[in-house]
Parts: sequence; C-alpha cells; structure tokens
Amino acid sequence: MNGGLRAQSVSGRRCVALAEAIAQQFWKSAGASDASGTFSKSNTAAMKEQGLYASCVPEAHGGGGIDRVFDKTLLSVALGRGCPSTALAANMHFDVSWLMGDLLRRRPDDVQAPMVAGLLVGIGNGDLAVCGSFSERGTDLLHPQTQAEKVEGGWCLNGRKMFATGSPGADLIGTSVRIRSAGEAPGLAIALVPPGAPGLRIEETWDALGMRASGSHDLVFDDCIVPDAMVRRLGNWGSWNEDLLRFETISTLGLTGVFLGIAESAQQILVDQLRASKPSATGRRAIDRYSIQSGVGSNEMALSTARALLARACSQFDERVLLGEDVALEGLHALMAEAQAAKTVVNRLAIEILDRALGLSGGVGYLARHPLSRLYRDVRAGPFMQPYSPNEAFEYVGKVALELEPTVDR
Amino acid sequence: MNGGLRAQSVSGRRCVALAEAIAQQFWKSAGASDASGTFSKSNTAAMKEQGLYASCVPEAHGGGGIDRVFDKTLLSVALGRGCPSTALAANMHFDVSWLMGDLLRRRPDDVQAPMVAGLLVGIGNGDLAVCGSFSERGTDLLHPQTQAEKVEGGWCLNGRKMFATGSPGADLIGTSVRIRSAGEAPGLAIALVPPGAPGLRIEETWDALGMRASGSHDLVFDDCIVPDAMVRRLGNWGSWNEDLLRFETISTLGLTGVFLGIAESAQQILVDQLRASKPSATGRRAIDRYSIQSGVGSNEMALSTARALLARACSQFDERVLLGEDVALEGLHALMAEAQAAKTVVNRLAIEILDRALGLSGGVGYLARHPLSRLYRDVRAGPFMQPYSPNEAFEYVGKVALELEPTVDR
Amino acid sequence: MNGGLRAQSVSGRRCVALAEAIAQQFWKSAGASDASGTFSKSNTAAMKEQGLYASCVPEAHGGGGIDRVFDKTLLSVALGRGCPSTALAANMHFDVSWLMGDLLRRRPDDVQAPMVAGLLVGIGNGDLAVCGSFSERGTDLLHPQTQAEKVEGGWCLNGRKMFATGSPGADLIGTSVRIRSAGEAPGLAIALVPPGAPGLRIEETWDALGMRASGSHDLVFDDCIVPDAMVRRLGNWGSWNEDLLRFETISTLGLTGVFLGIAESAQQILVDQLRASKPSATGRRAIDRYSIQSGVGSNEMALSTARALLARACSQFDERVLLGEDVALEGLHALMAEAQAAKTVVNRLAIEILDRALGLSGGVGYLARHPLSRLYRDVRAGPFMQPYSPNEAFEYVGKVALELEPTVDR
Amino acid sequence: MNGGLRAQSVSGRRCVALAEAIAQQFWKSAGASDASGTFSKSNTAAMKEQGLYASCVPEAHGGGGIDRVFDKTLLSVALGRGCPSTALAANMHFDVSWLMGDLLRRRPDDVQAPMVAGLLVGIGNGDLAVCGSFSERGTDLLHPQTQAEKVEGGWCLNGRKMFATGSPGADLIGTSVRIRSAGEAPGLAIALVPPGAPGLRIEETWDALGMRASGSHDLVFDDCIVPDAMVRRLGNWGSWNEDLLRFETISTLGLTGVFLGIAESAQQILVDQLRASKPSATGRRAIDRYSIQSGVGSNEMALSTARALLARACSQFDERVLLGEDVALEGLHALMAEAQAAKTVVNRLAIEILDRALGLSGGVGYLARHPLSRLYRDVRAGPFMQPYSPNEAFEYVGKVALELEPTVDR
Repeated sequence: MNGGLRAQSVSGRRCVALAEAIAQQFWKSAGASDASGTFSKSNTAAMKEQGLYASCVPEAHGGGGIDRVFDKTLLSVALGRGCPSTALAANMHFDVSWLMGDLLRRRPDDVQAPMVAGLLVGIGNGDLAVCGSFSERGTDLLHPQTQAEKVEGGWCLNGRKMFATGSPGADLIGTSVRIRSAGEAPGLAIALVPPGAPGLRIEETWDALGMRASGSHDLVFDDCIVPDAMVRRLGNWGSWNEDLLRFETISTLGLTGVFLGIAESAQQILVDQLRASKPSATGRRAIDRYSIQSGVGSNEMALSTARALLARACSQFDERVLLGEDVALEGLHALMAEAQAAKTVVNRLAIEILDRALGLSGGVGYLARHPLSRLYRDVRAGPFMQPYSPNEAFEYVGKVALELEPTVDR
Repeated sequence: MNGGLRAQSVSGRRCVALAEAIAQQFWKSAGASDASGTFSKSNTAAMKEQGLYASCVPEAHGGGGIDRVFDKTLLSVALGRGCPSTALAANMHFDVSWLMGDLLRRRPDDVQAPMVAGLLVGIGNGDLAVCGSFSERGTDLLHPQTQAEKVEGGWCLNGRKMFATGSPGADLIGTSVRIRSAGEAPGLAIALVPPGAPGLRIEETWDALGMRASGSHDLVFDDCIVPDAMVRRLGNWGSWNEDLLRFETISTLGLTGVFLGIAESAQQILVDQLRASKPSATGRRAIDRYSIQSGVGSNEMALSTARALLARACSQFDERVLLGEDVALEGLHALMAEAQAAKTVVNRLAIEILDRALGLSGGVGYLARHPLSRLYRDVRAGPFMQPYSPNEAFEYVGKVALELEPTVDR
Repeated sequence: MNGGLRAQSVSGRRCVALAEAIAQQFWKSAGASDASGTFSKSNTAAMKEQGLYASCVPEAHGGGGIDRVFDKTLLSVALGRGCPSTALAANMHFDVSWLMGDLLRRRPDDVQAPMVAGLLVGIGNGDLAVCGSFSERGTDLLHPQTQAEKVEGGWCLNGRKMFATGSPGADLIGTSVRIRSAGEAPGLAIALVPPGAPGLRIEETWDALGMRASGSHDLVFDDCIVPDAMVRRLGNWGSWNEDLLRFETISTLGLTGVFLGIAESAQQILVDQLRASKPSATGRRAIDRYSIQSGVGSNEMALSTARALLARACSQFDERVLLGEDVALEGLHALMAEAQAAKTVVNRLAIEILDRALGLSGGVGYLARHPLSRLYRDVRAGPFMQPYSPNEAFEYVGKVALELEPTVDR
Repeated sequence: MNGGLRAQSVSGRRCVALAEAIAQQFWKSAGASDASGTFSKSNTAAMKEQGLYASCVPEAHGGGGIDRVFDKTLLSVALGRGCPSTALAANMHFDVSWLMGDLLRRRPDDVQAPMVAGLLVGIGNGDLAVCGSFSERGTDLLHPQTQAEKVEGGWCLNGRKMFATGSPGADLIGTSVRIRSAGEAPGLAIALVPPGAPGLRIEETWDALGMRASGSHDLVFDDCIVPDAMVRRLGNWGSWNEDLLRFETISTLGLTGVFLGIAESAQQILVDQLRASKPSATGRRAIDRYSIQSGVGSNEMALSTARALLARACSQFDERVLLGEDVALEGLHALMAEAQAAKTVVNRLAIEILDRALGLSGGVGYLARHPLSRLYRDVRAGPFMQPYSPNEAFEYVGKVALELEPTVDR
C-alpha cells in the first residue's frame, strides 16, 4: 500500500508479506462471517498451517523470528485490512507469543522458561493458537474478580470473564485471575487453560454491532483446576507491575494496528470506487469535484497521521525497552502513555475516515452489502479496547505528563 | 422531554401529544423491525386509525389542523424517538398532506383544488397513507430521468426510482418525473400513483446499515398510465421553482426532526442507564465521575444546539412564508439555506451524540441487543437525505451568502 | 443583518435599532482604542447621551422599556458588532439596570425599592453608567474574599477585585462581597460604590491579548465605607441563591451576545472582501472557488447555529421566568444550564468563525491593521467569562441533566 | 524535552544541541522583540558567530555537516521553542544552505558548483546569512510576476515581493523571478541578491498579529542588476519542476517544525505553571482536577501526534530521496503530499494546543505579558505558509491519491 508502514527487519518483512497474502484470502469471506456472526475457525487454521501464527516465535524455536514490536504490530495492520474480527483474535495470539519470546530473551533462567520454550515450539510448529481473556463486568483490568485458590499441585479457578476474543479457535486461553496464597498479598496472575479443561465453559454470548466474527464470548470457570506450571504471578492485585504494563502496552499497539488496517482498507475501497465512477449527466466525474478531492485528501492526511503515530509509539518501545533503557515502571508508563495516545488518536481518526468514506461513497456505502457499512460498524469497537477508554486515556496521559500517580480514577 | 421543543399551536400540541403516545408503542417493536429489516405495516395502520396521519389535514377537511411547519416537524421528532424508520416514512406523508393543505390555503381556485380537497378528506378519514419517491441512481433531484409521456387522458410513466421510503405501506406514491408535452420545455412534475397500478412494480431491494424498517425500495415504472388529474407540473426540468423549493425545504426540516428524535432518545437511554448504575468495586458510581458528567453535559449541549437550530429554521419559514413575506425564489433560497444549515449541523450533532452515548454506556452499548447500537446505525442515514449532501450544503449555503447562483456544481 | 435575530417587542426593536446605529459609530474608533489599550469614555458618554444606556429602564422611570432578556441580549450583539470592548462594559450596565427593573416588577414592596427606583431614574436620564466587579484571584464567584464588615450606618469594604470591566467609565460599581453581621451566616452581597469613594482605588492593570479597550482593571478596597442602602444581601456566601442565579444567567446570555456580534461582524467583513476581490492571473475570482464558497457556507451555518442557540436560551428564560414558571432554584438551574450551553457553544463557534475567516481572507487578515486580526484576539476572551469555564460548564450541565447537586467541583 | 524528537546523526545531534542552547538565550528577548515588532539582528549575529548557521553546510566546506532533512528540521523545532520569529528566518537560511550542499552532493559537476561551494564556505565561516523571498500579492509560488530580463553579463530585475522573512538580517536574499531570454519558454529562476544592491529596496511593511519580529517586509526591485552567476533557472515558469519541488518540500517540513516548537514550548509553560500552582480555597490544587489532567493529556496526545507525523514525513524524504529512490516528479509529489499532510495537521494541532493551553492556564494566559498570549498569536501564522493553504493542501493531497494532475485549482 502506497505510503504504508514497512517492517523494520528481514524477518518482519517476510512475516508481514505472508500476513498480507493471507489477509487477501480472509477478505473474501469477511462479509459472510460478519453476516452470520460466527468466528472463522478456518481462518485460525490457515494462520497456523501457513506459518503466520509462528511469526513472533524466535527462530531458535522454529518461528518467524519477529522480535520488534513494530513488526509485530504490522501483522495486525495487515490482517485488519483483510478481516478485522480475525485480526483482533490474532493480535492476542501474537501478544502472548511475542511476550513468551521476550521472556526467554530477557530472563533465560526463569523457572518457567522451559515450559515457555515448550509452548513456543508448539506455536512455532503451528500446533497452538492462543487467546486471552482479561475483561469482567463491573471491574477493570487491574482488579479481576475471578479467583484462583491454591490447591494441591495447582490452582482452582472460579469466575466469569467476558470479551474472550478468539476463544472458539484457541488451543490455550490466557486469563487474568486474582490469586491468593497463604502469607502473600493478593496477586494478579495469568493462567493458561485449554478450552476443553473440566470446569471451563464457553458461553457463546457475543452478538454486537461490529467485530461480529471475533468470537468474543463469555468464559465461565467453575472449579476449574490449572496446574502450577501454567499459572504465572505478575505482581500484586490492583496495581500496575512491569510485566503487566509491558503486556498491555504491546497489546494496545497491536490492537490499534487492527483499526489502522480497517481505515486503510476503507480508503482503498473508496479510491478504487471513485476512480472507476462514470461521468454524471453533466459529464463530470465524481473525482473532478473539489469536495471529493479534498475529502479524499482529508482521509489521506488522517491515514498519514495514524500511521506515523502508531509507528513512532512502536519504535519508541523497541528503542527504549529492547535496548535496555527505561525498564523501570516510570519509563514503562511513559511508553504506555505514547501507546495510549496512539490508541486514542488512531481510533478516532479511523472512525472519522470511515465516516468520511461513507459520505464520499454516496448512498451506496450505506447499503448492507457494501463493505464500507461493515467496516463502519467494526471500526467503532476500537475505543472500547482495554485497558482505557478514551476519557481514561486522557486522564492517564495527563497524569504521566504532570508526574502524578498514573492510575485512573474510577 | 425536559428542554424539548413545544408545539406552537393548540392543534399542534394535540397532534404532537398523540405522536408521542404512539411513538411509545412503536418503540417496543422497533428493535424487531430492525432485526428483520421489514417495514411495519401495522405502524402505518395505527397512525391512520388513531388519527395521527390526519394531523396536517386542515380541520375543514376533517384533519388535525396543523398549519405550521414548526408543529409538523415536531411530529417527526416525536416519531423519531419511537421508531426512526417509521418516522422517515411518516415524514413524507406529512410533507405531502401539509403541502396539499397549503395549496388550498394559498390557491383556493387552483384547477386541481377539488382533487386535492378530495385527497385531503381521504387522509383526514384515515383512509390514505402517502409516500414519496424522488431519488434515482446517477442523477439528482432536479434532473429525474423517469419519463412521463403524454397519452390520451393521462401520462405514461417509464423509469426506475430508488429509496422509495414507506412504499410498502402507501396507498399513494408521489413520484417525480420529467414530463414533456408538445411545445413546452421539459417539465418537472409530481405524479400520484397507487401502488397497485398496472405497470408499477415495487422491488424490495432495501437492505442497509440502518433505517432497516423504512421500506426504502426501488420502484419500476413500465408503461404505467396515470390520469391527468394526478399529475402536477411544478416547473421546468433541471432548475428550482417555488413549489419544489417549498416542498424540499419543509421536507428537509421534517427529516432533520427524525434525527433529532433519535438523538433525544439516545440521550434519555444513556441518562436512565447511568442513573441506575451501581457503584463499582471502589464504591463510586459512574455518575460520580467527572468524565461521565461532562460527557453527559456535552450531549445536553449538543441537544440544546440541535433543538434551537431546527426550531429557528422552522420558525423562520413559518414567519416569512406563511405571513406572505419572501415568497419569491430568492427568499425561499434564504429559507432553504437555513434548513440546510439545520440539516447539516443537526445530523452531525446527532451522530456525535450517538457516538458519545455509545462510549459513555461502556461496552454494553456496542452489543447488538442494546438500542444504542441500533440507533448508532440509524442516525448515520441523516447526511444522505435529499437534496444535498453535507459537502453540497456547505457550497449551497455559501453561494446564497455570496449572492451567487444557488445551484450546486455536480 | 440578513438572518440576524430580531427583537421581540416594540421597545426592544427601537432600542436595538439605536444600538446598531451607535455601534456603527463605535466601529470607526475600535481599532484605535485597541491599539492604545484605553477604555473609551467617549463611547460611554455617547451611550448615556443618546439614550442607549436607558434601554433596560422601565418606561415609567424614563427608560427604553426593555423587559425581555431576549431584547436586552440583542443590545450586546449589536454593540459587539461595533466595539467588543465597549459591548462588554455595556452588557454589565444593561444587566444591572435590567435587574433593577425586574426587582421593581417582581417585588414592588421591597424595602430597597425606592432607592432602586431612584437609581433607575438616574439611569433613565442618562446620568449613570454602572459597571460590575465580581472576580478575584484564586477564588470563584460564589466565594468572594472581599470583606464587608458592619459599621455604623453602613459597611466597611476591604479586598481586591480584578477584571472590573468598564470601571474607568462607571458612575457606580457593583461589587460582590462577603458580609458578616452578628448572628448571621456569612452572606454574599452586592455593594454599589461610586468610583470616587474614599478607600476605593482603581489600579489600571488591564493589558491583554484582546478586549484591550474594556478597562478590566483591578479595584482595591481599603476601608471603603458604603452606606446601608447601597448594599444588598443576595443569600448565603458559598452557594447559589435565586437572585444570584438570575443575575448570572442573564449576564451570561448578554456576554454571549457580544461574541456572537463579533462573529457576525467578522463574517460580514469576509463576505464584503470576497465579493470585492478581483480575478487572479487565471481569471477566476476567489468566490468562484468551491473551497471559498464552502468555507463561507460553514461560517454561515455556524452563525445560524449560534444565533438560534442564544435566541432559544433567551426565549426560554423569558417564557419561564417572566411568566412565573420555574421560579424555584431547580428551574433556574435548568435555565442556567441552557445559558451555559449557549455560552460554551457560541463562544466556540465564534472562535471557529474567526479562525476560518482569517484563513479565507488570505494572508491579509493576519496583518495587524486588518480588523479580523483584532477580532481574532477579542473573540478568544469569550470562554473566560464568569462564572464557568467550558470544562466547568460541561460538568455543570451534566450534573443538572443527571439531577446531581449542580455545583462545580473545584 | 521528554518524548521529543532526537536527531538521527552525530552531526545532527551536535547541531541540534547547539540550537537548543541558543534558543534558550533567544527565549529571554522574544517577548521584547514581539512587543516592538523589530527583527532581532543580534539573534542572527549570534547564530552566525556561534556556528549554528553553518549547521547544514557540509563538513568539507567547514560546516556542521547535517545532510538529513530530519535533522535540519529539528533545528527549526528547537529555535521555534525559543523565538518563533527568529526560527522562521533561520529556517529559510537552513533551506538554502542545505540545498546548496545537496546540489554539490548530487551534481558535483554542475556549472554553478564552484560558485555554490564558495557560498557554502562563506556560510560555514559564519559570514553569510541567507533569506528568501518568494511571495507576491495576487499570484502564487509557481507564477512570480517579478521579471528578470537578460542584460549584458546578468539580469535586470523589476517587481515587488512580500513576506521576505529575515530580510533585515540577511547578507543574501534568494528571490524567485520570471526570466525570459530569447528563444526560451519563460522560466522560473532564483536570483541571489545582496540587500545593498543598487535597485533593491526593503520597505519595512511588516506589522502583523504574530511573528512580529520576523522582519517579513516587502522588497522592491527597480532595475536591479544581478550577475549571471547568481541566477539559477529551475525550470519553466508556471509548473512544478524537480528542484523547486524538493526546495518547497524541505522548506515546508522546516516551517512546520517551527510551529511544533511553539506548541512544545506552550505545553512546557503550561505544565510548569500547573505544577507550581497553589491549592485553592477548597484545598485542591489545579492538577488534582480531572478536567485539568485530561486537558494536559489531550495536549500531550496532540504533541505526540504532531511529532510523529513530522518525523515520518522527514524520514520518508530522507529514505527515498537521499537513497536515490523516487527522484522523478511523481515520487516527489508523493513526498510533498506527506509534507503537506504534516504541515496541515501539525499546524492545526499546534493551534489547538495553544488554544487549550490558554484555557487551562486560567485567565492569566490571556494577559499580554504572559508568553502564551504571544505564542497564541504566533502559532496562527502556520497555515499561511507557502505554497498551499489548508484548503489547497486537502485538494493537492487528494489529487495525488487519486492520481490526478497534482496542481491546485486557483
């Protein structure tokens, strides 16, 4: 795509090219998946089989070798241009696999490193798709109410999650829990659970305005036992810690990429339609009108803005964190602030791009069969992505700038 | 509704109260009609039976007696709060019946006055629902391509219309045609045709992002004969004339009312939901948060703005036109410019109100079953309403202000 | 002005016509007053002599007889088109004189009625110009820190005010004070003080980006004695009461009118300049370009919006308060919410109109000698007007809508 | 500055650090220069003496060695934080000196290379400051009306220029002219003229809303003779050519940097003021209020956006042009489209940042002595910068995207 972002590494370029090719396949079925509101398991299968799901696995473990968040994010952009629902689910898979690789790079001696390495090999082989489940009704990301109680050899989970995007196609579900063991403050942990585990039930509740094929269902844990090896404590319940902040930052960047992809796709559809449009009764083509030209120009400027902002937020993460700068919580909050800026601004720009594209398309874009009307619904999901709504993001970023405690007042 | 617009006449208050009561009934089925995408004939029947469809018929002809455009517009606002699709269809009925009454008030000796009076009695009795059909692919309102050729005792129609909102429930369809008779410049005329007329076919093509129950189908005229009495020449084909400009101005105001109604409904839903919401884990209610309060305040300000602008555009029409001022084309263009300002700004504000309401509702508003997600789709139809897109409206209003020829350059 | 607001009463039309004529005089010297940053005492003198300052005095007391807030507000709009600084000062004069008349209409038996009647006769004769002084550093309108201590036959004032607009031309200065007398809760009162009173000093501190000729200086009270008759307790210190809320509501509406006047003036300048502009080298005139036409159209729409919103807020006040509806605090808060909506939206629109006018004027509007560059500075003062900043207004209006205690959290 | 852009090369970092240090000196006198409206010759002298004006001269010619447009642009950002008027003038100097270096890198055998090398040595020594003069009343950049007629050994110039920023401090003035010589199509050329040349007169006309110390005066050429060596034909009069497009692209990027610098400075002033503010009567500090926090956050997001967009536009230029890609006109138009996107969006964001900063500062920011009120005036100059107004930029970028002839319809 003209003016589009380019991967920064050789492995990135290879994986992104694959994602673009696969996205073109997904585009063909995206409308039907939306209409039926069903998660496309065949898309997941294709991404596993064709090696795309191995993209963020280190080469040593048989993967595509992406280690830059910049390049990882471009996978989401590419898939977002094809099937946004699938891209949302894939992003979580890339998040988790990237973080596993990151863990091995940063802490090769971690006690859970062998387990993580094993999982990476599985992902690298195309055997495993991972999804995540971090949302619950009436609380926020730092305060999950789903409980993990210590039992012999593992943990017993009870609670209800929502918005478990990608769960119908997952082989492993990462879920956030509140853990408590004797003598410790309540912790926030991630448990990895296979969907067939006893005591875990997927309730197919997802039916929304857009992102209808994302399978963002409810999960119910009812005395579900998870072995010790598959539970990782990140820090204390109720406050940010470094691992969680890294996770949420890269996840935010990837999710934002999906919505940039939607906007890029919409602009391409619009430009193609306009260039093919025939002269009206007066002999003028649509593209001869200033209002059409300047509307297209507005959208291009919005795309340039969105790309640049997302790219820079990713680059800053790669430069500072991967080069070992700013590893403390304060530095991570500064990077998260950049990611939240990217999320907030890119989502708003993407919504505006779709709105403008709908208008410039004439009435035809409002028809149900036209892809712009589908993308108009999909793109509105962006501001709901965790961990911060736009209003919360403004507060968070402001607090970081003012050097106040960067928590959001809920 | 608090702060809402109040009808300006006794008859207006009575009819608007009826519209509000009926709208509450329609609200209950609006979600189902949207889901199935079917026009609600029972809504049309209810409006005929309960006398609402007689609102704009003069009392002398058995109607509700609304003669102010202000009050007529409030009917659309009220219905828009209940079922926007139904309101769109009803607006056209009110447009046509108001204009018939207006014709009798202004030109009691018109050669077609007896026929018009007869139709008004029928509408007053609740026997007739009227819809309109003015759009065609690839051309604009002033240049219909549907032909009416003179034949013995009437006219023979050929052509295809689109967006014939309300056609499934109509007893008469008003349609714009290009007429030509010997020795005359091509004319622009309105023909009234019953849906069962030989040579007229409704193709149920309507399937869109929103306004899904509006029945905005295609009409195909294939040697359809219409008697002379039911065809009225408004002026020359291809340019504005006074009758058409009056028609489009009041129609624009009524359509705008529908979208104000949607926005009012959304804000009510939001405020009710917020006031009922329970404290979070931290003990604070949603409405205790500044960002929620100020978001609600932003929406209130947008509603105040939309109401005021629509009200003033209506009042100006009533004051100047009904009092006999500004009856020339130039004066009507100034009023149309106010109507276009109202349309453009109110539609944009209504879209923003829905967008903000969706955000303030939390993720729940994005769910398919939540009325805000339906209204979010419906409200986006506003800018597509004839005769001008927003970009065209800016140009039109600018040309009026600059005293240039007020046509839009297409 | 085409599309402009029209006074609602005969007396209103007469006074507004006078204001328009005087505003044209003021226009000629507005640039020079701005450049030197001096308050125009001759403008005040002209308004007294030509009877404009008597506009809001009841006819029985020799005045112009305006009793509707709608018409009073149009005085500020008209003056705002001429000299915004002068209009700001005049608005306070109209506020106070209108409220005095209102007091006599509502409470003819009030103990201070004779004194008020005497002042009204003075204003009606053109002998008195009144200004107001309600702002202090580091506190808000409800919490003045300037003290009035009871002394024999009067009150002793101490404190410092700022933004005492119009003080250089005033014969009486209304100032808010915190009063305390034995056995009473601290009160909020208005004291009327002549500028030459012992213990009152005007410090000519005003030097700002715009509104440079408004004389918005500091006042210093240093044991300044004010007789009992000239001090009126409105209610308790620190909370809204009905009199203060009425005062602030009509004042807000009038101030908003000044900024509408600025915007109207700017658009007139722009349209006149564009219509007079010569063809470029390519033979096209500026007004032949779509971008110019649509920019002018955007400004027209913004003006229509601003006028309608301000008009409706005024009409609601006149209808409900003057007809005796909603006299309780809750009803007044609803009206204040409409006034705050008008203030916030009109100010923002006016700023946008000036910004767009500057752009559409080409580089010439940016030159210091061009009136648009002056108005661009003046118009930015709008959002600073008391009692609420835009952020506070969103909160206030939201709280009213949510039926929360309508105070702003500072 | 936290989150600010970092130079990409060693020489860039050295020169930008110098610019930042000098900018801090300039900050101290910027208010006084604005008040008096005089160009600061001592600032020019300081930049020459301290070596800053040599930044874009190749090291081989005794300069700072900046060859990336990214780094060159950061010089303007840094100076914009200190004295925007000076930064505007300096930007043109950097444009010209960078292009001279670029010419030597790209076309070492050019017939004018020795002359250019000589000038670069002079700039490298701190002997020469260059300014530019490309604007004329009633025409655009591609159609200068100033004539250069061939005479013996040189050219004879006649015409009037405006907006010759920096002219009072320049040793050489680059000016665009229409040249015609026998047998050739009219050409567009740049002539370098010393300010003391016979027949050249600077008319000190500049007196504007902002950028008051930029010395953007008129130049009058009256039979001014310029030797052949100092005139360079870029291409045909009236259309883009590669050299001119490169020049305007890098100039646009640098100018945009000045306005980013203004915005960064404003945000810093605001944050410092807020962090130092004392608790109000209620005991809360300004920074404890959500509306303040989220306003600061909005500004931070706008800054992140502006930085990212400008940075990416610069990087794209450096990557494609300097690496030899896209040297044809079409590729340059794509880069110019990115530069115009950056210009349009960054200028708008910078204006919004200043507007929001003014509001968040409270009334104090509106005072004439407060730097925010000065920067509020300066920042509004951005959209007027050549070659395209915002409306023209939307059209231009749209035409590039639609693959239409990328000229603007004036």
